[in-house]
Amino acid sequence: MKEFEYIAWLRSQIPSDRRVMVGPGDDAAVLAPTARPLVVTTDVLTEGVDFLQEEASPRQIGRKAMNVNLSDIAAMAALPMAAVVGLVLPRRGGARLAEELFLGLRDAAESLDVAIVGGDTNSWDGPLVISVTVLGEVSERGPVTRRGAKPGDWLFATGSFGGSRLGRHLNFTPRVREALALHAQVPLHALIDVSDGLAADLHHILEESGCGAVIIAEDIPLSTDALAISQQSGRTPLEHALSDGEDFELIFVVSPEDGRRLLDHPPNIGVAIHRIGECLDTGFWLQEKGQRRPLQPSGWVHRFE
Amino acid sequence: MKEFEYIAWLRSQIPSDRRVMVGPGDDAAVLAPTARPLVVTTDVLTEGVDFLQEEASPRQIGRKAMNVNLSDIAAMAALPMAAVVGLVLPRRGGARLAEELFLGLRDAAESLDVAIVGGDTNSWDGPLVISVTVLGEVSERGPVTRRGAKPGDWLFATGSFGGSRLGRHLNFTPRVREALALHAQVPLHALIDVSDGLAADLHHILEESGCGAVIIAEDIPLSTDALAISQQSGRTPLEHALSDGEDFELIFVVSPEDGRRLLDHPPNIGVAIHRIGECLDTGFWLQEKGQRRPLQPSGWVHRFE
Repeated sequence: MKEFEYIAWLRSQIPSDRRVMVGPGDDAAVLAPTARPLVVTTDVLTEGVDFLQEEASPRQIGRKAMNVNLSDIAAMAALPMAAVVGLVLPRRGGARLAEELFLGLRDAAESLDVAIVGGDTNSWDGPLVISVTVLGEVSERGPVTRRGAKPGDWLFATGSFGGSRLGRHLNFTPRVREALALHAQVPLHALIDVSDGLAADLHHILEESGCGAVIIAEDIPLSTDALAISQQSGRTPLEHALSDGEDFELIFVVSPEDGRRLLDHPPNIGVAIHRIGECLDTGFWLQEKGQRRPLQPSGWVHRFE
Repeated sequence: MKEFEYIAWLRSQIPSDRRVMVGPGDDAAVLAPTARPLVVTTDVLTEGVDFLQEEASPRQIGRKAMNVNLSDIAAMAALPMAAVVGLVLPRRGGARLAEELFLGLRDAAESLDVAIVGGDTNSWDGPLVISVTVLGEVSERGPVTRRGAKPGDWLFATGSFGGSRLGRHLNFTPRVREALALHAQVPLHALIDVSDGLAADLHHILEESGCGAVIIAEDIPLSTDALAISQQSGRTPLEHALSDGEDFELIFVVSPEDGRRLLDHPPNIGVAIHRIGECLDTGFWLQEKGQRRPLQPSGWVHRFE
């Protein structure tokens, strides 16, 4: 195994973590056993596809590479614990680039007390590739999957949607604390983070749960970015909210009773939650001015003109 | 999160594993809690650096990508449990390539009852990148690190060394079962798998343990590949054994009493073990025909001619 050349430096920057029993310099990191089931997720970011070095600083790229994984842990209502990082660096300027990437990886990891416990660094005459794997532990209530939505359940979302490519896709907060707090307050039936798009990711829940849903156009929280980007794109802010993706907000599904409870006593989680619709037996619909139209997972709305 | 497009197919090929409680189709895989400390390791293989598609089939590449990680788990005397795979595929022919890679990843995983529980697939107009992360559980005796070697301890190795690039570097058996069996029989003071080279990896143990060592030239097991490659290279088989690397055999360190026990009652682990030297207070030496010469971590021997 090639060691993570910068790991010693990195470790010196990160508060020591009781969970890590044996550190880098060995063939594998050793972590304390978990009391509850583990979750594991991995995401690979590639230059030219997931980011452009002209549009994002290395530190922002590092932060995003960690945060997209933390968002996947949030989407299980789990607590992230440790991460490993695989890097393929361009030979020219790779060492400097790595340091900046690690600052970003560390920013994101530290903010949720996640230890970066190991990795592998390679270089080549090619573009940058970052692969991050995050391990976590489920909460006392167990993991939340995409499978538990039932007809009649209410649909909620955190935050607001659309236009994330104006910058928010690089500077988002993975909703780890929010997911844990919500799941502690009321049992979540289903949960997902919005990476592909509000419509697409809600559709993932429906597919896995085997039910339908209607979302209410007027109730979808539009980000100021959705409004701004709409001015240039010629598409409506709603279309941006439904289809842009990379909002990294949560969509979650609860019973109507628990939904009512959340509306009556909004949880104090630092981000607004909105009821955006409800689950049905079948179909995927957008209700606008009282009228239901079929909604595509892409976010495209079929208009009966 | 982008799902692992082939994971459903892959899962259908892999025997179900009780450890995996929630499968792909979610944002993260869920694994049963571990009774003992966890180990985690990651390795990234890149086309043109770690392999050439002209010299290795996709299935061989997949197998190697998994096996180098399993070898790192072996080097902790731990039991691998689950893996996640990140892929960056060339757009042209990527789907076909992925299927073949997965067959190789599965070959290696299945042979040690490791579940491939998730991953991320990307494509681009660039070369192939494979990132594998493996989770495992340490044995009852706990993890073995590189840090426990003491002056007077005996050095052992499994298998034979040198010339792995004739093919063995693609078709090796990670010494997982062997490490567990050895560690169950006698407590291993230190352990490493040979990826960088016999001399280099032994040197890693010495650095981490803060001691020296002498290895006995006549006792180093030479592979038939070391003999074959020596015919073309003009270097001796011993030099190949010391410096080639990618043998993925184990170097392990035990007390003299336990070393004697291993020699008197060779463990039935399916591979030969050899005593190759012993630990000293300081220095790094090769003893040849009774004479000690300084040995470089690169495997280069300083000759006093």
